[in-house]
Amino acid sequence: MFPPPCVVMSLAMPRYALKIEYHGAPFVGWQRQTAQTSVQGQIEAALAKLEAGPHTIAAAGRTDAGVHAWGQVAHCDLKKDWDPFKLTGALNFHLKPDPISIVGCVAVDDDWHARFSAVERRYEFRLLMRRAPATHDAGLVWQVPRLLDVEAMQEGAKHLIGHHDFTTFRSSICQALSPVKTLDELIVRQIDGPSGPEVRFTVRARSFLHNQVRSFVGTLECVGSGDWEPDDVRTALEAKERRACGTVSPPQGLYLAHVRYPQDVFADAV
Amino acid sequence: MFPPPCVVMSLAMPRYALKIEYHGAPFVGWQRQTAQTSVQGQIEAALAKLEAGPHTIAAAGRTDAGVHAWGQVAHCDLKKDWDPFKLTGALNFHLKPDPISIVGCVAVDDDWHARFSAVERRYEFRLLMRRAPATHDAGLVWQVPRLLDVEAMQEGAKHLIGHHDFTTFRSSICQALSPVKTLDELIVRQIDGPSGPEVRFTVRARSFLHNQVRSFVGTLECVGSGDWEPDDVRTALEAKERRACGTVSPPQGLYLAHVRYPQDVFADAV
Repeated sequence: MFPPPCVVMSLAMPRYALKIEYHGAPFVGWQRQTAQTSVQGQIEAALAKLEAGPHTIAAAGRTDAGVHAWGQVAHCDLKKDWDPFKLTGALNFHLKPDPISIVGCVAVDDDWHARFSAVERRYEFRLLMRRAPATHDAGLVWQVPRLLDVEAMQEGAKHLIGHHDFTTFRSSICQALSPVKTLDELIVRQIDGPSGPEVRFTVRARSFLHNQVRSFVGTLECVGSGDWEPDDVRTALEAKERRACGTVSPPQGLYLAHVRYPQDVFADAV
Repeated sequence: MFPPPCVVMSLAMPRYALKIEYHGAPFVGWQRQTAQTSVQGQIEAALAKLEAGPHTIAAAGRTDAGVHAWGQVAHCDLKKDWDPFKLTGALNFHLKPDPISIVGCVAVDDDWHARFSAVERRYEFRLLMRRAPATHDAGLVWQVPRLLDVEAMQEGAKHLIGHHDFTTFRSSICQALSPVKTLDELIVRQIDGPSGPEVRFTVRARSFLHNQVRSFVGTLECVGSGDWEPDDVRTALEAKERRACGTVSPPQGLYLAHVRYPQDVFADAV
């Protein structure tokens, strides 16, 4: 049998979920901006090498300038049915030499959305405690030249976990409709990092306010250095005022580590 | 009492041992070369900012272009009695923005020599097994796009440990008087690295031939990829011919990790 002369095609374009790793240093952040190099813009440009654009991709988290990702997630719609393995290879080829890497790719349903389907984001923060400037980890950690009191930081962190009005810990330009969020986890621990002792923060929530993690880390550093008492964190939280925040950490220690979806779409990703 | 009008000074200049970390990418290697940027040259230039030069420093290991160090050791002679803490800070200040960092500094005896007093060098090698290009670890690992058979590599590595003629595993431009060396340790293990599964090599000996570690790693990669049998490593060793070597790994996965001295001079280093 020959195929019928006219094949009715589905109007929907195949959708692909992309798991993305990047080094934030060379970029103005995730979001595309005119005439400046963004992670989104570079991936869209790579897609345009495969299929004529314009392409607009959506991501789970819009990271700021200098912030890194181990597991950013975005989706794209393409005309052709791509083998995910080949799509990954082609995108990584066209992304060179930018420090952006597609580390997982999978076909998803039309109604799957990298941002709106996500049910949890996890960020990690690396704070290196040493005096001598970092070399291999330069740009990948926030470095402070002294040992911090990690137990006091853990004590302070407890006040932040749970359902709160986080006005104190959000940027004045934050566009979220409400400052009320639920923080599911904020783990502070000391580890032996490759460049010396680090304080590692693991922060987990359904969603975050702008600069929330960096405001947490900067404020807890005030506790670790002895400038603040652990209970001052509660006072700051209860003030519900941006000016009550300790400090805001620099971006280069922050990593978007993982985005969780109701189903682990990348479980079998190539 | 006034001091006597003429104080007889010791002719010996104070000597300092420096423990040095660096990222090898921007340098032609450790050794100073005319008109090219070397680690030695940059440190000597920083010393000249503190005391008029010329300065000539000696190091425990002369790493090649692109090779990194966590624990290179060198010594320098200065006119002034420097507080090691202040000397470290001043050198690190003048080394900016080069990715070279003095991570330990201590005053040592006149007859202590960074190279000749050393009794053991330890190198580490990072081999990342993943297809997607590394971003945070770009330039810090040798990346291969497939999983290797680490057990076979361990099997092959056993043939190299001990007292051997290592002609097969030394560069044709190696200037050592003898190709006979004792390899005390060659550990091959798989770890979960920050960018994915890694093969980590730990190699320990009193001293090494030129390109010896990279020749070991390249040859063992041939075993891990299935191109060689583990016993082919013994055949290569026994051939005592450079052309019997598998391959030579690229430099960017190699780290001079530690130099051991009869006394741990850096035990109390600032």
